[in-house]
Amino acid sequence: MWTFRQENFNADEIALNGNRFMLGNGYMGFRGTLEEYGREHYVACMLNGVYDRVGDQWREPVNAPNGMLVQVLCNGEMLSPLTSKVLNHVQELDIRHGIHHRRTVFEKDGGEITVKAERFISHDRVHLMAMKYSVSASVPVKLVIRSGIDGAVWDINGPHLQQLELTGEDNLLQAKAVTGELKHEIITSALNGFQGVNCGTAEAVWMEKELVLAAGQEWSFCKYVSVCTSQDGAGASAMAVLECQQAAQIGYDELLKHHAAKCEDFWRKSDVVISGDDEAQFALRYSLYHLMILATRHSSAVSIPARGLSGQVYKGAVFWDTEMFMLPFFTLTDPAVARNLILFRYRTLDGARRKAREYGFDGAFFAWESQETGDDACSHFNVPDVFSGRPMRTYFRDKQVHISADVAFAIKQYLRQTGDVAILREGAAEVIIECARFFYSYAYYKPGKARYEVLDVTGPDEYHERVNNNAYTNKMVYETMNIALEALDTLRLKDRAGYDELAHRLNFEGELEAWRMMKDQLYVPAPAADTLLIEQFDRYFTLEDISMETLKSRKLHPDEYLGGGNGLAASTQILKQADVVLMLNLFKHEYGSEVIRRNWEYYEPRTEHGSSLSACAYAMTAAHIGKPDWAYKFFMKTATVDMTGHSKQFIGSLYIGGTHPAANGGAWLAAIFGFAGVSIVEEAVIINPSLPEKWQSISFPLVLRGQEYFVTAGREKVEVRSADGNEAPQLFRCGEVSVNVQPGKTAVWHNKTAVK
Amino acid sequence: MWTFRQENFNADEIALNGNRFMLGNGYMGFRGTLEEYGREHYVACMLNGVYDRVGDQWREPVNAPNGMLVQVLCNGEMLSPLTSKVLNHVQELDIRHGIHHRRTVFEKDGGEITVKAERFISHDRVHLMAMKYSVSASVPVKLVIRSGIDGAVWDINGPHLQQLELTGEDNLLQAKAVTGELKHEIITSALNGFQGVNCGTAEAVWMEKELVLAAGQEWSFCKYVSVCTSQDGAGASAMAVLECQQAAQIGYDELLKHHAAKCEDFWRKSDVVISGDDEAQFALRYSLYHLMILATRHSSAVSIPARGLSGQVYKGAVFWDTEMFMLPFFTLTDPAVARNLILFRYRTLDGARRKAREYGFDGAFFAWESQETGDDACSHFNVPDVFSGRPMRTYFRDKQVHISADVAFAIKQYLRQTGDVAILREGAAEVIIECARFFYSYAYYKPGKARYEVLDVTGPDEYHERVNNNAYTNKMVYETMNIALEALDTLRLKDRAGYDELAHRLNFEGELEAWRMMKDQLYVPAPAADTLLIEQFDRYFTLEDISMETLKSRKLHPDEYLGGGNGLAASTQILKQADVVLMLNLFKHEYGSEVIRRNWEYYEPRTEHGSSLSACAYAMTAAHIGKPDWAYKFFMKTATVDMTGHSKQFIGSLYIGGTHPAANGGAWLAAIFGFAGVSIVEEAVIINPSLPEKWQSISFPLVLRGQEYFVTAGREKVEVRSADGNEAPQLFRCGEVSVNVQPGKTAVWHNKTAVK
Repeated sequence: MWTFRQENFNADEIALNGNRFMLGNGYMGFRGTLEEYGREHYVACMLNGVYDRVGDQWREPVNAPNGMLVQVLCNGEMLSPLTSKVLNHVQELDIRHGIHHRRTVFEKDGGEITVKAERFISHDRVHLMAMKYSVSASVPVKLVIRSGIDGAVWDINGPHLQQLELTGEDNLLQAKAVTGELKHEIITSALNGFQGVNCGTAEAVWMEKELVLAAGQEWSFCKYVSVCTSQDGAGASAMAVLECQQAAQIGYDELLKHHAAKCEDFWRKSDVVISGDDEAQFALRYSLYHLMILATRHSSAVSIPARGLSGQVYKGAVFWDTEMFMLPFFTLTDPAVARNLILFRYRTLDGARRKAREYGFDGAFFAWESQETGDDACSHFNVPDVFSGRPMRTYFRDKQVHISADVAFAIKQYLRQTGDVAILREGAAEVIIECARFFYSYAYYKPGKARYEVLDVTGPDEYHERVNNNAYTNKMVYETMNIALEALDTLRLKDRAGYDELAHRLNFEGELEAWRMMKDQLYVPAPAADTLLIEQFDRYFTLEDISMETLKSRKLHPDEYLGGGNGLAASTQILKQADVVLMLNLFKHEYGSEVIRRNWEYYEPRTEHGSSLSACAYAMTAAHIGKPDWAYKFFMKTATVDMTGHSKQFIGSLYIGGTHPAANGGAWLAAIFGFAGVSIVEEAVIINPSLPEKWQSISFPLVLRGQEYFVTAGREKVEVRSADGNEAPQLFRCGEVSVNVQPGKTAVWHNKTAVK
Repeated sequence: MWTFRQENFNADEIALNGNRFMLGNGYMGFRGTLEEYGREHYVACMLNGVYDRVGDQWREPVNAPNGMLVQVLCNGEMLSPLTSKVLNHVQELDIRHGIHHRRTVFEKDGGEITVKAERFISHDRVHLMAMKYSVSASVPVKLVIRSGIDGAVWDINGPHLQQLELTGEDNLLQAKAVTGELKHEIITSALNGFQGVNCGTAEAVWMEKELVLAAGQEWSFCKYVSVCTSQDGAGASAMAVLECQQAAQIGYDELLKHHAAKCEDFWRKSDVVISGDDEAQFALRYSLYHLMILATRHSSAVSIPARGLSGQVYKGAVFWDTEMFMLPFFTLTDPAVARNLILFRYRTLDGARRKAREYGFDGAFFAWESQETGDDACSHFNVPDVFSGRPMRTYFRDKQVHISADVAFAIKQYLRQTGDVAILREGAAEVIIECARFFYSYAYYKPGKARYEVLDVTGPDEYHERVNNNAYTNKMVYETMNIALEALDTLRLKDRAGYDELAHRLNFEGELEAWRMMKDQLYVPAPAADTLLIEQFDRYFTLEDISMETLKSRKLHPDEYLGGGNGLAASTQILKQADVVLMLNLFKHEYGSEVIRRNWEYYEPRTEHGSSLSACAYAMTAAHIGKPDWAYKFFMKTATVDMTGHSKQFIGSLYIGGTHPAANGGAWLAAIFGFAGVSIVEEAVIINPSLPEKWQSISFPLVLRGQEYFVTAGREKVEVRSADGNEAPQLFRCGEVSVNVQPGKTAVWHNKTAVK
């Protein structure tokens, strides 16, 4: 089952379906809207990494002119399910091949007019979208077809497109605009596969053709749309035209074949097969689909925004979501994408340096909300106070220092799992060094306790701002210092010239001893001897300990923010999202199962799960401690978030909906690291399945240090196949039994005992 | 001019006049209400140091049953300016002798009935109040006099008086009650100087007498009221009775004489004579009067609450106000009172230790709002949010750590000015040690900058909570460490046994080296090389720099709080009250005049003066830098605050008015340390007058190290007389010229040049 399908038309779900039926290829995203829609229906062709600011509003990504506009007019009336009588409507997304279908049967003058459209954004050619559009009628009709480019784009804080130039010459149309802030050129070209009359307004350009259809006759055409920007290099306009012309020459079917082949490639490297649970199977694949359309294969200048390419929400910014919730998937299935995501942090390092300087620190303080320069798009005032109407002062930007540790940690995982030491010299080492520098300058020493502490931070649980010694943060800072020291050792050993160049340029060698001392004396909150609980931060356990219900009963306004200076949660133990449990998940082999269980049971009832990042940590840890059925609901929650769309779409008139790629990544994490029990430690890959009741087995590929493996983890049997082309053996462990799996061979464990 | 007088009756000023016409003697206060008033008119006989809590409301001081109740009935109607026709009404306060007068002429049946009452709270006998009451008529009338005790007392968070027992036997009445929380017995006895019929209700007991007055006839009686509590020792009830009986034996006039003699004694030691400015003269004396009625001569178990004894506002709690704004006056005029105020901190040291422990620190973290045990009466939630109606989370209690430094600093000043080394052994040394311990455990070391820092504090400017390295706080912490080390040196030198006992008991000797190191490496924000500005705290100068007008224009509600998590001032440079300037004032000899001037000019326009503590610091520093006319308006503001009563009396229905003893103390500070330019440094007393335009001279006594001096500081001439009984010479300096003034001698400087 590879089709996400919706029958019947529901005008209330236009915004939601825009997300559910998204297409994309990392370069751009196209919302799952209908061809006849305009800006009021949240049509958007969002460009990754192109940002613009209007006045003193916040910067946000730019939407390109909509080249996919097609409308059918009957007796002068535009057919649309919003205004016309609909007999039948289906919207479908082929998640295997990234193809959007719609089929609408309109009733008109006693007959039926059927509109069908199929479209895809090419994974083979990043600038290209293509569409096949057809219309037929059950009775003779006269129709007008319009196909063009709509320059009236939807914006949250726009308009960004200025100096709009619309041209049409035969069947080649173009919209060209310049952004206000940085004067980026944005070009959409479209080539219609039919002849017609060129028309236009100040905001749109299109071709019109009159159609006379006999009863039962179908008329169809193909359309090739290319989007380029001046960020792609000089001659973007010509490039866009050329791209359309080439596409037309190749033809729709051939383009689709190449595109589909790339998608197949993705699934070959990434598909996870769950046997025994079709619902989970589809939800997980649907999650992977969203990662597929966001993968930045083409460039390291962009990363994956927290709302993907589904809109301008959250400023199109890149958060820790990428490193902590998406990167593991790419690292273990398509390391080249992971590499780009890591190098994005190197490309934005100067922004992180500027931010550190702004707050008086050394090194790199990565943006909480990074745009293309690495400067922080996050403001000090953002969450609206429902009581006064003013934006509240929050400390996401200035106190969520764990972001720099998350980046370093992610690089470390990438290095371990890929063996790609070259990336150190290409920027990763510099990033790590600057993160360690930052934390050294951020930490304080407490003489009376003979330890370093990390003060005044906001951990993942954003409801508790400005706390001291947040367990997650301190542990991650410790890791960062360790990672820096290790990475420099590795570089010195494996690439002496690279090390020397870096040492000369960054002049860090005099700092290493201090970093080592800080690491050795850093306070990392540990499980209490009696309860085994890890306190989320200093004095967390002294906060009021109330139930979620009590907290909610205190609300005076349904939308009031629970964090911030006066939020209801701030003085209680209620947390927004996994914090200690997230930390325990990352370091599960350092803490016994009993520690994880006790903390899970303590923190879960106190967790609001007010972030889509929360559920997967609870799923992974529950599976790890042998409670897969506790884990299951969290897995399903994270895997279905974008299918159900059960998340807030608006605050007042502000659109805040969109897709949740971190939750999509979290679904994979929960499946592979949770239920399949995969963990990659220095010397081995551990596989300790902990499957939900319904599941018979879970099968999936893994790429590790450039070699491919295929794992099937069942209730009693675990099987690992090393691909034929692999070059070296790899140690796998299940239960207490390790097997060094040779290239081309399969190892099988029965009840955690090796068979072969 | 020693009389504060108000003619005509204004019902709107009942609450205000309760403060303006206050009586008190440190043991108790009696609000300036009329004799016939009841609880709805804010009558209160507030007991210092007796607290009670009802349910989960906050703890507050207890008001005793009102023994001063006298009412006159004419034709069954109680005469009161609130309900009767008034021809003439005068309320007067003799501030020299602490005597309250009222005279009201009522029109009744075509004639005039005149009521006169005079009362005082004895400064000679702390439990005693006395009254002389008379009534006369211009026409023959039949009246009923009622004189008794009203057990229906005014409370903010009451009722506190339970098990009320009311007794009357002949002319001796008594009301006895028990507080709910700690079961304190509260007794008011009253003895009427006339015979009558004993009457009572469940809430009051009184004597009634029918009077038949001829035209022009006056009838009068005296009343003696005593208040005792079980905190005064066993047998409080008998003590109260005995006190009344003794008083009656001694008689009103004799009691008044003894009382007045004590007042005269106060003025002899404290009066400041300003020549050339009657308005300032009276305002200053009025301020000193309020200090006179609060001076805790009788006990070190109590101190002076921030609203004096004028009511239960601010929980009757003792703040830093006492040490920083009132103590200098007492130290230099009546050191025995200052000694009691300091020993109060010793008696409440265990509460301060508990508070330090509560927050995870060592030593003593004094209460922001101290009651009798030293535990903090301040809650985490207190200021109401006008938008949501909820109390806001503020950080007065947990972050205003400067309170412990203020206590240590005050002790240091007291020691320097009195030479009373014995107090060290009697508790002051222990207080200082515990304050140093607290700060050592509070501070952090910053290795990269090789310095200690004081993080996450709220300075005097409460609009900026949770800041790092607040200049005032850091400087005061530095002083505290210094004071501790010096005090221990002094004690070791002068009282070896005392030192050894302390060292044995508190075991601090192993810590001294660490304190010294911390002190030497403590970061104290210094004037910038170019601007000479001292940054109020880390990154203060990066805050939005707007005018007070702009800030106010952003208000959405007239009463919205400007501080707290989302307060309008918090993200701007607008401050509530003197902070850097207060620090500069305390250490003016360490900073050049130019530094003070530049900071004064920078910070003053950014200061809201939202606290009555603010003005005097600006007055003192302005005078010091030769700008007495800048200083004058701040002096007048602080000196008149309780006369004008131009401060908020109510928030909603919550009474928040009261007197401002810190501002009263601030008026003296501004006069003596500001305009007279007195400063007492280690080796000398400096006198550098800086008089406002109108002032010819200012004359005042000073007690220094047990010796008395009388200073007259004029525009050209400064005169210092050393009292005849003094034992040693004392160095005084004016301008650059020092004179060692011998006992019985007078030194005169003309234009800062010594004459004799």
